[in-house]
Amino acid sequence: MATAARRGRPRAEGTDDRILGAACDLLLARGYDGYSIDEVAQRAGVAKTTLYRRWPTKDHLIVAVVARIQDEVPVRDTGDIRRDLTAYLEAVAAGLTRMSRVGRPAGPDDRSAGLVAEIVAAAARRPDVGRAVRAVFARRNALPLALLESAQARGDLGPGARPDVIFDQLAGALYYRLLVTGEPVGGDYPARLVDQVLAGARAPGPEGKPS
Amino acid sequence: MATAARRGRPRAEGTDDRILGAACDLLLARGYDGYSIDEVAQRAGVAKTTLYRRWPTKDHLIVAVVARIQDEVPVRDTGDIRRDLTAYLEAVAAGLTRMSRVGRPAGPDDRSAGLVAEIVAAAARRPDVGRAVRAVFARRNALPLALLESAQARGDLGPGARPDVIFDQLAGALYYRLLVTGEPVGGDYPARLVDQVLAGARAPGPEGKPS
Repeated sequence: MATAARRGRPRAEGTDDRILGAACDLLLARGYDGYSIDEVAQRAGVAKTTLYRRWPTKDHLIVAVVARIQDEVPVRDTGDIRRDLTAYLEAVAAGLTRMSRVGRPAGPDDRSAGLVAEIVAAAARRPDVGRAVRAVFARRNALPLALLESAQARGDLGPGARPDVIFDQLAGALYYRLLVTGEPVGGDYPARLVDQVLAGARAPGPEGKPS
Repeated sequence: MATAARRGRPRAEGTDDRILGAACDLLLARGYDGYSIDEVAQRAGVAKTTLYRRWPTKDHLIVAVVARIQDEVPVRDTGDIRRDLTAYLEAVAAGLTRMSRVGRPAGPDDRSAGLVAEIVAAAARRPDVGRAVRAVFARRNALPLALLESAQARGDLGPGARPDVIFDQLAGALYYRLLVTGEPVGGDYPARLVDQVLAGARAPGPEGKPS
């Protein structure tokens, strides 16, 4: 959240944190349509103009809240790529499930992507929101990408493996299930996904058909 | 589009085709917000009530149009899983790129998911649209899944490979790039993706670290 310096305008320490904390509370409690930017300003104890100057629309504010929630997911490099990727994807899956249910009662048959779909749609509709979403994901995804690159550097991934393509497969599978097919992303799915991605699909040379 | 029989109501042959053709033309020419259901009925030469009885909202109609466009993508089993998957994903990527640009001028820096994101959002907002979208994708995805199962049956995929998880990795990577990171899905990306998915990431046992 240390973005104040970059904007070249002095800002009371903690103002961004207070605003984002208030926005996060309201978003998680009431969902996308359940609150106004004015309520966020009031709850955070800041002038509306302060908030609007920083995040011109509710969509911009929600993207910042998403970045904050993503930052709560730890990315640890213990040297065991299978374990580290599985832990990371389990946390991402839990976060996606939580975000998909924001502001709605969570029925057992509920397969809506909820807020995650709203953010995707906002990013597609407004170029500036799209840029903000892509910047948030680029910053965040650098961490699991570094995990994969580090595994490759110590020889745990093949020299021809492409960390960026591997990451697309992992994150992509979770988002595809949530946004398109409605299949669950929790339980043992992240572990099965990581196993499949690391092992590959092709039959092994000697026992199977030639690859 | 031979769905009329299943609805148990006699319908003039080709009515659905005419409606979906008109809807497809209008959607591709003008985008999600650029036309009305009434215009579709007029162009197709059917009564509005006929159209509304079949597809109660524009979102339902668009989902049916998407199914029709998906059906244009061939899924061929030539016995070469690498080639068949690459051809399939190249076609899906081309279709996604086309749908993302519907109704908008396609600038070189345009990274919006456009209509694809609108459909995802409509599916998340309305349970009945969500069910329709999931049904369309389940029906369609059965074809590439069969391709993977057939490859596994003839020994071209490992016995422990999971066709459903492999499919999530492939389709997921494309949708993730389109909807979230805004990275391009065309060019040689589908081929690189298929190669990575089939080969796996783990370093080979003898040369690399023990897996």
